[in-house]
Amino acid sequence: MSAFAVIAGVGPGTGSAVARRFARAYPVALLARNPDNFTSLVDEINASGGQAVGISTDVSSEASVKSAFAQIKEKFGSERCAAAVFNASGPFQRKSLLELTADDMSKSWDVSCKGAFLFSQSAIPLLLAQGSSTSSAGAEQHPPTLIFTGATASVKSNAHMSSFSTAKYAMRALSQSIAREFAPQGVHVAHAVIDGVIDIPRTKDWLKDQPAEAKISADGIAEAYWGLHVQPRQAFTNEIDIRPMLEKW
Amino acid sequence: MSAFAVIAGVGPGTGSAVARRFARAYPVALLARNPDNFTSLVDEINASGGQAVGISTDVSSEASVKSAFAQIKEKFGSERCAAAVFNASGPFQRKSLLELTADDMSKSWDVSCKGAFLFSQSAIPLLLAQGSSTSSAGAEQHPPTLIFTGATASVKSNAHMSSFSTAKYAMRALSQSIAREFAPQGVHVAHAVIDGVIDIPRTKDWLKDQPAEAKISADGIAEAYWGLHVQPRQAFTNEIDIRPMLEKW
Amino acid sequence: MSAFAVIAGVGPGTGSAVARRFARAYPVALLARNPDNFTSLVDEINASGGQAVGISTDVSSEASVKSAFAQIKEKFGSERCAAAVFNASGPFQRKSLLELTADDMSKSWDVSCKGAFLFSQSAIPLLLAQGSSTSSAGAEQHPPTLIFTGATASVKSNAHMSSFSTAKYAMRALSQSIAREFAPQGVHVAHAVIDGVIDIPRTKDWLKDQPAEAKISADGIAEAYWGLHVQPRQAFTNEIDIRPMLEKW
Amino acid sequence: MSAFAVIAGVGPGTGSAVARRFARAYPVALLARNPDNFTSLVDEINASGGQAVGISTDVSSEASVKSAFAQIKEKFGSERCAAAVFNASGPFQRKSLLELTADDMSKSWDVSCKGAFLFSQSAIPLLLAQGSSTSSAGAEQHPPTLIFTGATASVKSNAHMSSFSTAKYAMRALSQSIAREFAPQGVHVAHAVIDGVIDIPRTKDWLKDQPAEAKISADGIAEAYWGLHVQPRQAFTNEIDIRPMLEKW
Repeated sequence: MSAFAVIAGVGPGTGSAVARRFARAYPVALLARNPDNFTSLVDEINASGGQAVGISTDVSSEASVKSAFAQIKEKFGSERCAAAVFNASGPFQRKSLLELTADDMSKSWDVSCKGAFLFSQSAIPLLLAQGSSTSSAGAEQHPPTLIFTGATASVKSNAHMSSFSTAKYAMRALSQSIAREFAPQGVHVAHAVIDGVIDIPRTKDWLKDQPAEAKISADGIAEAYWGLHVQPRQAFTNEIDIRPMLEKW
Repeated sequence: MSAFAVIAGVGPGTGSAVARRFARAYPVALLARNPDNFTSLVDEINASGGQAVGISTDVSSEASVKSAFAQIKEKFGSERCAAAVFNASGPFQRKSLLELTADDMSKSWDVSCKGAFLFSQSAIPLLLAQGSSTSSAGAEQHPPTLIFTGATASVKSNAHMSSFSTAKYAMRALSQSIAREFAPQGVHVAHAVIDGVIDIPRTKDWLKDQPAEAKISADGIAEAYWGLHVQPRQAFTNEIDIRPMLEKW
Repeated sequence: MSAFAVIAGVGPGTGSAVARRFARAYPVALLARNPDNFTSLVDEINASGGQAVGISTDVSSEASVKSAFAQIKEKFGSERCAAAVFNASGPFQRKSLLELTADDMSKSWDVSCKGAFLFSQSAIPLLLAQGSSTSSAGAEQHPPTLIFTGATASVKSNAHMSSFSTAKYAMRALSQSIAREFAPQGVHVAHAVIDGVIDIPRTKDWLKDQPAEAKISADGIAEAYWGLHVQPRQAFTNEIDIRPMLEKW
Repeated sequence: MSAFAVIAGVGPGTGSAVARRFARAYPVALLARNPDNFTSLVDEINASGGQAVGISTDVSSEASVKSAFAQIKEKFGSERCAAAVFNASGPFQRKSLLELTADDMSKSWDVSCKGAFLFSQSAIPLLLAQGSSTSSAGAEQHPPTLIFTGATASVKSNAHMSSFSTAKYAMRALSQSIAREFAPQGVHVAHAVIDGVIDIPRTKDWLKDQPAEAKISADGIAEAYWGLHVQPRQAFTNEIDIRPMLEKW
């Protein structure tokens, strides 16, 4: 039985790198709200011998997530889900508590926590289906994996970061709860604390006076996620940090 | 200039104990959605020589919180706000990820995170007003204090606890961000990890076969909050855990 | 039955402040290697209506600690031990890993970890003696308390801080293990993370361009320790941080 | 220029698995106090096309560690050190605080903290030599890596675990300090929290009533260490946890 992977939050940085990495092994379903974020990537993967499908999805909308997974099931029905990666994130914003609005708080939570919840709730049954079949599967079949992309703000909350960090802390709580509930059924759940600036087009002017090693490579993150995916049942990692060599501690 | 305190989330447990403790020093404004939760307590405090006013408030509603603080300002206009305690909490609920609804997730967040945000946003300006005046005040005046009631689920997220723990993690992030932003202006922000079952009427059948020391005393929590409030500017604590002697570690 | 307290690591800063605070309630035994560190303090306490005895003790020496506690038992034989505070610390030192010697590492560990161990091992039986008698005691009797003075370096280990931080991390592990073992028998164990520069004669030139609120008050620490001591059995705190209002986060 | 790896603490479990994994890429120097722990492994690696040398070393002895690294330099003089793994550990022991001896405490610290320090101090210069040359090296050359094997007791200290956990906490502090000091010079330092029982001959009777997934695979740990080693400079992980699928949380 063949398998597929789902990546939510595909943009020009981590999401695309993760999509490319997992597409080397599996057909991939790529979710993003704006099709501009996946169209050329889908073409690129399909053109280079992989298989990709893009599905426009608002992860904060229950109907949209359900629709996306319905399309996934239709597309990959008889295959197993090998991996699901939640890489979506609400807007990064720095505002004083006194300037934040309830809407700012909600928008961040809607994506990073509610979105992660909706995605997990749809992904877990597909991952479990694989989990239960793994015992009899060949050794080359990796445990089904659910990975969440966190940030420094998932574990440390600075001034002017309330909207972003509350939602990221919440997502980390979600990942821990899911890990504890579904590990016994064979699902490997992991949370990555991305600790620094990712080296993508949008950040090319940040840390300009520093060597490349001051930023995190998106491909490096993708490779770390793949490394989590291929861990065997007797050696699961639930949380990793990923940082550049020249991180300012 | 005299002072007052505000306590949100006044119920039969921690909230009432905190209200009674702070009412020994200050007039108190007690907020709860359901007036049944504060009516007799308001009477009790007023009858025993203190001053209390109850304000029916839904902390998850911006309009309701603004209205509550408008009433507080009207009532205590020329006084300073000595302390604000956020003790409200969304429903405690144990459900599998697969049974939780988006509504379950939202309801928990609405109170514990959005509510804490709305409360803080209204309380901070009142606390800052005192903060700036503290320098010239007498030594007996304690730094203005904002305290959040957290739980084990604020730092550890178990299976079947997603709705509760995501919101509690988020509230902890909020408290840390506010502490970092407003400590330089003299506001003492603290988060309490209440680590165990509180000894209140509702829990009297829990841990029945155990000695009293297996539960946390609400008065003990209240005293710890008071202890935080009276810390001087040169010795602030930002987080404490509170647990019973016979905690099962 | 009356009671006494023991404070190890009495110097010009935290130790003296803690000694003075506990001496307001109990006769105190003050331990320091160099009698210069306690002689005038002993005189001061005895002259102002308290009772103090100084015992020259090397906490890193088993024989010295045993001798000190033998003197304590002789002096306070029929009284109970209300509190024991371990405030000793190895030398603070910043050195590259490549410049540190094995001796640097050992000296730090000898005081902060081995010393804390030896002190605890001698103090616990005295505290337990009180613990078991507390049940029938009057309500005014506080649970026997064992407090350790930690530092930022107990939870965060920076470059050039190996010798200090390894020993401080170790002491924190010790305090947690002791808390879990002896809480069920009524001993309240707490660890304080002192997070900043303490305002003592030796540091008067540090942070000179900053207001007083950039440093921690030793009296503030002492008051926090007293606050831990008076916590009831149904509301123990195991760890607090103590920092100045103007901490640079 | 070719490269080699050093593994300290080679026994029948993790150490051997790590040695075998790194021996697939590099000649390896295997350190253990008792030659019985490496003799057959050295033979096995050499017989199967790899290169291994065993060096009897007491990591808690400065002279012994210096002698070992002198032999390593003699053997691999013109090669670069690609990786150094510290896997040695003091005795695991459960004892009440009241039964522990100062000698128990020291023995644990001597290996896990002093030993890790001595090993690091000798290894870092060799790793740095590679670090500085990496820039001009081919892409296939992995950043020089220093890995420490920790345990649950590195982050959580239970009753009766003082001797083991104090030393493990200390080692974690050491690894963090070294990471902060030498990452800017290109050395990748990582600490692994091995969270459970490792599946080795000595533990074959533990958790007997449980499936294999209740124990950690030593090969899984080794593969995770290799995964850390091959991380690029723009995606370093400083800490991972490794646990079995059926961990009892």
